[in-house]
Amino acid sequence: MLESLKQAVWEANMELPKYGLVTFTWGNVSGIDRERGLVAIKPSGVPYEELRADQIVIVDLEGNVAEGGLRPSSDTPTHVALYRAFPGIGGIVHTHSPWATSWAQAGRGIPALGTTHADYFYGEIPCTRPMTEAEITGAYELETGNVLIETFRERGIDPNQVPAALVCSHAPFCWGKDPHNAVHNAVVVEETAKMALHTFQLNPAAPPMDQRLLDRHYLRKHGKNAYYGQK
Amino acid sequence: MLESLKQAVWEANMELPKYGLVTFTWGNVSGIDRERGLVAIKPSGVPYEELRADQIVIVDLEGNVAEGGLRPSSDTPTHVALYRAFPGIGGIVHTHSPWATSWAQAGRGIPALGTTHADYFYGEIPCTRPMTEAEITGAYELETGNVLIETFRERGIDPNQVPAALVCSHAPFCWGKDPHNAVHNAVVVEETAKMALHTFQLNPAAPPMDQRLLDRHYLRKHGKNAYYGQK
Amino acid sequence: MLESLKQAVWEANMELPKYGLVTFTWGNVSGIDRERGLVAIKPSGVPYEELRADQIVIVDLEGNVAEGGLRPSSDTPTHVALYRAFPGIGGIVHTHSPWATSWAQAGRGIPALGTTHADYFYGEIPCTRPMTEAEITGAYELETGNVLIETFRERGIDPNQVPAALVCSHAPFCWGKDPHNAVHNAVVVEETAKMALHTFQLNPAAPPMDQRLLDRHYLRKHGKNAYYGQK
Amino acid sequence: MLESLKQAVWEANMELPKYGLVTFTWGNVSGIDRERGLVAIKPSGVPYEELRADQIVIVDLEGNVAEGGLRPSSDTPTHVALYRAFPGIGGIVHTHSPWATSWAQAGRGIPALGTTHADYFYGEIPCTRPMTEAEITGAYELETGNVLIETFRERGIDPNQVPAALVCSHAPFCWGKDPHNAVHNAVVVEETAKMALHTFQLNPAAPPMDQRLLDRHYLRKHGKNAYYGQK
Repeated sequence: MLESLKQAVWEANMELPKYGLVTFTWGNVSGIDRERGLVAIKPSGVPYEELRADQIVIVDLEGNVAEGGLRPSSDTPTHVALYRAFPGIGGIVHTHSPWATSWAQAGRGIPALGTTHADYFYGEIPCTRPMTEAEITGAYELETGNVLIETFRERGIDPNQVPAALVCSHAPFCWGKDPHNAVHNAVVVEETAKMALHTFQLNPAAPPMDQRLLDRHYLRKHGKNAYYGQK
Repeated sequence: MLESLKQAVWEANMELPKYGLVTFTWGNVSGIDRERGLVAIKPSGVPYEELRADQIVIVDLEGNVAEGGLRPSSDTPTHVALYRAFPGIGGIVHTHSPWATSWAQAGRGIPALGTTHADYFYGEIPCTRPMTEAEITGAYELETGNVLIETFRERGIDPNQVPAALVCSHAPFCWGKDPHNAVHNAVVVEETAKMALHTFQLNPAAPPMDQRLLDRHYLRKHGKNAYYGQK
Repeated sequence: MLESLKQAVWEANMELPKYGLVTFTWGNVSGIDRERGLVAIKPSGVPYEELRADQIVIVDLEGNVAEGGLRPSSDTPTHVALYRAFPGIGGIVHTHSPWATSWAQAGRGIPALGTTHADYFYGEIPCTRPMTEAEITGAYELETGNVLIETFRERGIDPNQVPAALVCSHAPFCWGKDPHNAVHNAVVVEETAKMALHTFQLNPAAPPMDQRLLDRHYLRKHGKNAYYGQK
Repeated sequence: MLESLKQAVWEANMELPKYGLVTFTWGNVSGIDRERGLVAIKPSGVPYEELRADQIVIVDLEGNVAEGGLRPSSDTPTHVALYRAFPGIGGIVHTHSPWATSWAQAGRGIPALGTTHADYFYGEIPCTRPMTEAEITGAYELETGNVLIETFRERGIDPNQVPAALVCSHAPFCWGKDPHNAVHNAVVVEETAKMALHTFQLNPAAPPMDQRLLDRHYLRKHGKNAYYGQK
């Protein structure tokens, strides 16, 4: 079942090595069929060079396997928590891409410093608070999703307008309208993370960009008044 | 019409991914036919892997489409403003190449620190002032061109001798005698930006290079006494 | 003799250029047959593009050549010292991979700053003390092994749980259950070294990660309660 | 004439793009026939993708063209000055490789910080003093050679033991026993420059390596007691 979703999830997973976002098996992509409430996700620990579309695992929104002979990604509870909390998203990607991961390890969100960022993210890409002992020693992967959700809710950030976040001491989670779009956003997060680090090296006091410039670029590409690209 | 210009603009656009200057569609190249006053430019948002020469759009010097079924780059008003103000240039390229963009985000021009820079740019590659609220919320892309032009006029810089600049909080614009040469200069800007950042990491007080050394290298390659290359 | 070990050692050596871990001949991989007490190792100074499996040299645990027409790696005494001291390891790799080597040159161990590190190394990747005059001018390569061994013994680190270390002013040595696994760990060390450097650039006061998070990630992948990957 | 030298010089030039040492035409390699006192060198400004062995220019030790229809590299006077002053060298390479050029722009020599450096360079890779007005405005390329030679003579450095130097505000010159070996050394300079910069980022007070460790590694690979590689 869900052959086209499995195919899309497989293709999006295969984009991770193509874009240089993963070393070994350090990443996974999922996609959701909102009508059926089912999620397709990479199996755990399978190397990309061996991954086949028919190995993509189907789970329900509690993370229980609905179809597939392999175990789903160990991060599955994080994915399904995000799908439950963020109804506007259709695909999720998790990687340990090195520039974004460096920000996560530093415990810092990536501020909007220029128009590249503004074209995709309507403000800072947040970094979560450190997880508590109870969260780490409990249902860890589920709690990883919960601390991401808390970050957006408590800070009033719209996950559709800022489709990525960093888990403190860990790495980025990114999402989008579908699995392919989530990978696209993961590429942008990595590029943005790299440039923001170099910006601070050149100007340690670099302030966030002008709010109006952020508005201009974000809204040039998103929403009803967008005028970038072909209609 | 303008088949050879469209071909040259298409080829120059395709050089951007070849030289690693673009991620996704974050760049565009244009070229001008000065006799006819027409500009050929990349269509907006078309991926490089799909771009064909016959999709290059022809616009007049006000940015109105003269030929082509696709929308021109959303940065078209910037390009035509530069062509109007800088009569010596024949091609323009805009990218978000990461090293140069980091300088733009830091709000700093790239000083001439060595002979690599001096071989191409006769002094600092300037960074514009931040754009004003009126400029951002008004005819933004046209105003982006205007702030670039102002930077050269107010600081007395010859755009033929410094064929590139950084838009503050945004990214570089580069130009040259034709589209191919503009891309060539964009590659140099990126290389120069990378080396200048590392130079400052090694020596935060590194001064601009000796003016006579700058003269020597620039004039070795440019002007009537040049002696680099084959005649 | 030991054809399959020689083949495995050759394949693991050939992975070094594939993963970008070596320039020229700056690296070597060995593997051990514990039953026979024999080690297969790269010959000294042979370029990777010319290396053949039948050129892999067999030495005993004192480093004496048991088979092969070429000299073994000049680092052979280091390898055999580690095999003698660390009975749980089956393969060793030495490279001058640039990020890890930068930490070695700085005389600093790589602290555990995030889950990428924790997935493979159960704590800091240590850096040895500087070698003494007697060690340097004596049996240097053997003493290199000895100072690595001392580092693990004196600091109470289990080499099976932290399968890598940096030799001060030199470069990393990594190991694993077999030659292929040792190279895998060498890739992780390099990635970890790169991200840790960038983390400190973003947050010079970044503390080591939460011990419970380190436990959680390390034990998710290692030991009897591991739940990452397929069974 | 000198067909085999021209072939060797052509091959060495073609190694520059292969190793990522050059952008566009920013580099050149030469080789010398000591018996005849003739030097083979890249023609000026010819792109590597078009360069053919029969285009290599032959000049005498004063830099006068002895054979070839193209102009020799504009850096020819630097090359011949070095060949005249350093009788032990057989090939020279000049590039603007980015990491080494960053050190040159910072006006700093690259200190010996680890064994990678020590395996090739018996001490710091020096950076020249800034050139004077008279040198820059006079016979500039010849004076570039002279300031390099002065650096080795006044500091008592043996150019056979430290086969590279940085010209202040410019870039590296490297040499070796033949053109291929000179390129090999240029690769090492670039790798060493990269790692030294990162070492100082991790430890701004990193001292030069222990002199005995420098001796050990340099003499392990050079001189009559060398024991690295095959005999």
